[in-house]
Amino acid sequence: MSNDFKIKGVKIAKLPSDYGSTGFKMFKGGVLNNVEIAYETWGELSINNDNAILIFTGLSPSSHAAASETNDDPGWWDFMIGPGKPIDTEKYFVVCVNSLGSCFGSTSPASLNKESSSIYGTNFPELSIEDIAKAGHMVLQSLQIDRAHTVIGPSMGGMTALAYALLYPNDLSNLIVISAAARALPFTISIRSLQRELIRSDPKWNNGNYTKKTAPINGMKLARKLGLMSYRAANEWRERFNRARIQKKSNQKMFDIEFEVENYLDHNSEKFVSMFDPNCYLYLSRAMDLFDVAEHGGTVNAGLAKIHTEKNLIVGVKSDILFPLDQQKELADGFAKAKKNFQFEQLDSIQGHDSFLVDEDRFSKVIRDFFRN
Amino acid sequence: MSNDFKIKGVKIAKLPSDYGSTGFKMFKGGVLNNVEIAYETWGELSINNDNAILIFTGLSPSSHAAASETNDDPGWWDFMIGPGKPIDTEKYFVVCVNSLGSCFGSTSPASLNKESSSIYGTNFPELSIEDIAKAGHMVLQSLQIDRAHTVIGPSMGGMTALAYALLYPNDLSNLIVISAAARALPFTISIRSLQRELIRSDPKWNNGNYTKKTAPINGMKLARKLGLMSYRAANEWRERFNRARIQKKSNQKMFDIEFEVENYLDHNSEKFVSMFDPNCYLYLSRAMDLFDVAEHGGTVNAGLAKIHTEKNLIVGVKSDILFPLDQQKELADGFAKAKKNFQFEQLDSIQGHDSFLVDEDRFSKVIRDFFRN
Repeated sequence: MSNDFKIKGVKIAKLPSDYGSTGFKMFKGGVLNNVEIAYETWGELSINNDNAILIFTGLSPSSHAAASETNDDPGWWDFMIGPGKPIDTEKYFVVCVNSLGSCFGSTSPASLNKESSSIYGTNFPELSIEDIAKAGHMVLQSLQIDRAHTVIGPSMGGMTALAYALLYPNDLSNLIVISAAARALPFTISIRSLQRELIRSDPKWNNGNYTKKTAPINGMKLARKLGLMSYRAANEWRERFNRARIQKKSNQKMFDIEFEVENYLDHNSEKFVSMFDPNCYLYLSRAMDLFDVAEHGGTVNAGLAKIHTEKNLIVGVKSDILFPLDQQKELADGFAKAKKNFQFEQLDSIQGHDSFLVDEDRFSKVIRDFFRN
Repeated sequence: MSNDFKIKGVKIAKLPSDYGSTGFKMFKGGVLNNVEIAYETWGELSINNDNAILIFTGLSPSSHAAASETNDDPGWWDFMIGPGKPIDTEKYFVVCVNSLGSCFGSTSPASLNKESSSIYGTNFPELSIEDIAKAGHMVLQSLQIDRAHTVIGPSMGGMTALAYALLYPNDLSNLIVISAAARALPFTISIRSLQRELIRSDPKWNNGNYTKKTAPINGMKLARKLGLMSYRAANEWRERFNRARIQKKSNQKMFDIEFEVENYLDHNSEKFVSMFDPNCYLYLSRAMDLFDVAEHGGTVNAGLAKIHTEKNLIVGVKSDILFPLDQQKELADGFAKAKKNFQFEQLDSIQGHDSFLVDEDRFSKVIRDFFRN
């Protein structure tokens, strides 16, 4: 038994035999055995195996980026992936992986450690963004794909795509980094650090020892509320909620919810807590804080100079407070200094960090144009 | 016994007799008896009683705005108040009140209810910004000051100064509103709502029934961390902390503090929790969410049109995410539409909402110029 939240229709890549003798060595030390990575695919691999687009996800989504034959539930990026869509499954073979360390079928803190016969919990080794990239690389290898046409990721997935290009510079032709950064800013670290503290402050977290039934759902709910606040933008909420009130309950107490915006946060955080494992959240969140392109060359620019993709696309959103536009500009400047072929798109979306999930018009156009050219 | 945190040297204004028969009627219903307001003064009242400057504070400070003869501890606005300083105590009689509902000597949820012989806690009536303004008005009345030369306030104090000008339009000549707003935005409401939830989620809050020794200090600490994050600005932290690490402990665990910014938040929130009463925090925080100039005339502009001060100064800071500059612009636009005499200063301070406490150069200049002209 594991605590994972595996969803229907995923395929599972098992650790290929060339890693088999030593296990999966983690970037910052430690080894995982029997690593499995859940993934989904759309479209057909070409005869030359040269049309694969590899998608890494943000912190919380699964590999179910779009509805498919094996799982017709809506995906988290349905408007982007499909026949005739910006990531066109009539031309490309699209692979989306569930991150190593996430609970949707991949090996994670919520998985059973077959050696100890108990759930990893906080005995899972330190997780790095580079490990997630390596696990994605492993999936492509298992599919006999030596070189991806494009590696793409939003948010944490953008960090992972950068890590992929740094670790395997010969194994991808193009790179797309969306609403991500070379490394986290202190303000962003403080948000994620507080989210982790909210989970850890819930007595039910119990140092990571809980079951699905005894999970620290209150801490998760509070952490998710803070997350939702950082994913959106003040002006969008002003337009959407302004100061609208909800109907008071007959037994309304002094500090109960009164505003629509509070109700929105309550409802959306409630939905999330039963859908994600708290320990996985802690590991993935911390991996984002620790990731730093500068570890691959001494400085961010030296790291970026090591990437030698043919084309690079950097996309950022002006209303993003979690990965502010300055950080995508830092990536673009680094590519410019290293004389790389790159395109930098600064979008006017009003939905903050989450814009890539909801601003279909702007994001469709920029991704469609990239693949068209 | 009360839970209050009264500081040395404060004077206490007791409810004057003209309120005595009915008690202090709260703006949204309910009555408080035996209301006391702590305040401090600097300088001398003129013979005509026409040189009083009334200062309202933000959510957390006491009336100790500056060092004084009765209390030489540093004040929260020392650079602003004193002989020859921008608020010049050689010319003006300066009065700073501890807000009704705050725990530094004024009647609040932490006070003893003399009728029930128990601490108010959540039996305190609903608190409004207007009540805080009325309590400040009461203090000036007790000092025989019918008309203030200027009423000034930053943050919550700016809202209170607006409420004062709305409730007592004939009782002040000039108004200064700093880093405040006509009403809270949904993003700001969401921050404060989550802060309150963090306090209420601490089992020690116990529906408001605790003593100083059993107070919900963990909830307060978490709420204060979130507060500190909203008071400052991402770019200042980037300059100040960037990704600097602290020395790891010998027994460092997986999710312990690693970055300087986390350490700063931990240290500063730790200092705060023993200095402020949790129930007072809840009441004052909620009062800010509920305040709305539009309740004084139907719309914000109609409310502002009712203010008939001689001069008005609105100050905002470009890096403020809690009361963004748009909100000070809304005030300025309202004064403009109503053809009021006003000045609007948009400052380039990098310290976010807290700039008025720390950006001595910019804030000294703008306040000094106001009183000079």
